Amino acid sequence: MAGIAWVNGRLLLPEEPAISPLDGGFMYGEGLFETMRAYGGKIFRLSQHLERLIVSAAELSFDPPAAQNLAGAVEEALDAGGLDDAVVRLSVTPGIAGSPEPTVVVVVRPLALPAADLYAKGCHAVSVPATQIGGSPLRRVKSLNYLDKLLAQRAADRQGAHEAILVDPDGCVVEGAMRNIFAVLGDELVTPPLSRGFLPGITRATVLEIAEKQRIPYSERDLPLTELHGADEAFLTSSVAEILPVAAIDGHNLGRVPGRTTIRLTGAYREAVAEEAG
Amino acid sequence: MAGIAWVNGRLLLPEEPAISPLDGGFMYGEGLFETMRAYGGKIFRLSQHLERLIVSAAELSFDPPAAQNLAGAVEEALDAGGLDDAVVRLSVTPGIAGSPEPTVVVVVRPLALPAADLYAKGCHAVSVPATQIGGSPLRRVKSLNYLDKLLAQRAADRQGAHEAILVDPDGCVVEGAMRNIFAVLGDELVTPPLSRGFLPGITRATVLEIAEKQRIPYSERDLPLTELHGADEAFLTSSVAEILPVAAIDGHNLGRVPGRTTIRLTGAYREAVAEEAG
Repeated sequence: MAGIAWVNGRLLLPEEPAISPLDGGFMYGEGLFETMRAYGGKIFRLSQHLERLIVSAAELSFDPPAAQNLAGAVEEALDAGGLDDAVVRLSVTPGIAGSPEPTVVVVVRPLALPAADLYAKGCHAVSVPATQIGGSPLRRVKSLNYLDKLLAQRAADRQGAHEAILVDPDGCVVEGAMRNIFAVLGDELVTPPLSRGFLPGITRATVLEIAEKQRIPYSERDLPLTELHGADEAFLTSSVAEILPVAAIDGHNLGRVPGRTTIRLTGAYREAVAEEAG
Repeated sequence: MAGIAWVNGRLLLPEEPAISPLDGGFMYGEGLFETMRAYGGKIFRLSQHLERLIVSAAELSFDPPAAQNLAGAVEEALDAGGLDDAVVRLSVTPGIAGSPEPTVVVVVRPLALPAADLYAKGCHAVSVPATQIGGSPLRRVKSLNYLDKLLAQRAADRQGAHEAILVDPDGCVVEGAMRNIFAVLGDELVTPPLSRGFLPGITRATVLEIAEKQRIPYSERDLPLTELHGADEAFLTSSVAEILPVAAIDGHNLGRVPGRTTIRLTGAYREAVAEEAG
């Protein structure tokens, strides 16, 4: 597999051994990560990704390296990887217990996107119960404890769906297992509020910023699954896949795929990428 | 630090790099572990530990190596470690995505026990809300997604307590963050039922087996925190610490420390160890 890993300053192949079995990241999933997309060798919204990781570290009570050092690590890895368009995963753990040095890992790999026709025809989603309680800090941070989402995503895979939509016990949508979710109901763009307890997506924030600028009516409010089933449009957001339209949820076909609001936001998102990372 | 790591057949120091950053265990905390205690070079209830890991792997949809191979790995690591009394941690992950070979890690380290006077005077515990929903498979398996328990344990540490007792939203006790819990109420030995959704401890099972043999009245039933606060005795169980008496929970002092039932079970547990692993 092409790509490179940068591990505390050492460059090696991603498959090579690099992490001690005593590292908190391996022993307990203690650590945080960010998955980012490089366009022409430059990461879109790098500083927001680093800020989220650093703020989250406080919730897990460990001191991450400074943003500047993390940015330097990402830059070195990107330079060494020699890939213009890439998926870049940054992982930070407290290292071996008692050690003063955190573990910083940057893996740069070739871009792998959802099939092109999914952007045109929309993907299918299924709903699954959210397994963690909303108040848990683990819902709000992108920690290495990612197994509940992985299991939800696999349950969706087994049903031939592309994404699992996590739903709270009261029937309200939380997020996708791998991406945030938006619905368009009439002319209103709706996405669950951060108070539901989920990972605040960088792409989600960018979409809300675009809606604000373009005066598209939007609200961050509770979204019952039944309402999502009857939405006019829906889409998923992530740094790698950007804006991915949804065609059906639990077998309920949505009205417009991709809908006009989805198309408009996709265009504006790509303009933002071209301006900032092009 | 003394000790040794066995990683897919290679022997190295535990601090050395051994795990690829692409390993599912590092990327998502995808994997399982067992923490065991070796007495005179022999692990107590090894087969029960291996069985739990293998049964749990099915819940996470991955194929672990055969029990015989895992037992062989543990034996090789113990031989190489040269420690008679040791903590042995076995970790198994699916390896790198797409790879047919799982990652098997055995780390053998010197035994580190709670201070001796805690066995005489009892430890202090505090209660914290359980963060995962009871039905989640992640509650029932000892996965590498261990961060919620680690955070609960650290909250207890900050309060000067030795263990965090996880409590469900309905006020019933689930388990300790690092160990299972028992209470003695009058003459009855009580521990939460497996239906609460928690890790079925090997030491917990051994204690219940001893109670059965010695005709100590016991029940696996819901244990409200308020009832635990007023218990005559309480103790925590784990493979490493064995049976650790509790002196106080949330500041409520318990009646007998260590109580007569705790003392009786501790004696019988050590006899079982001497018979099987001595």
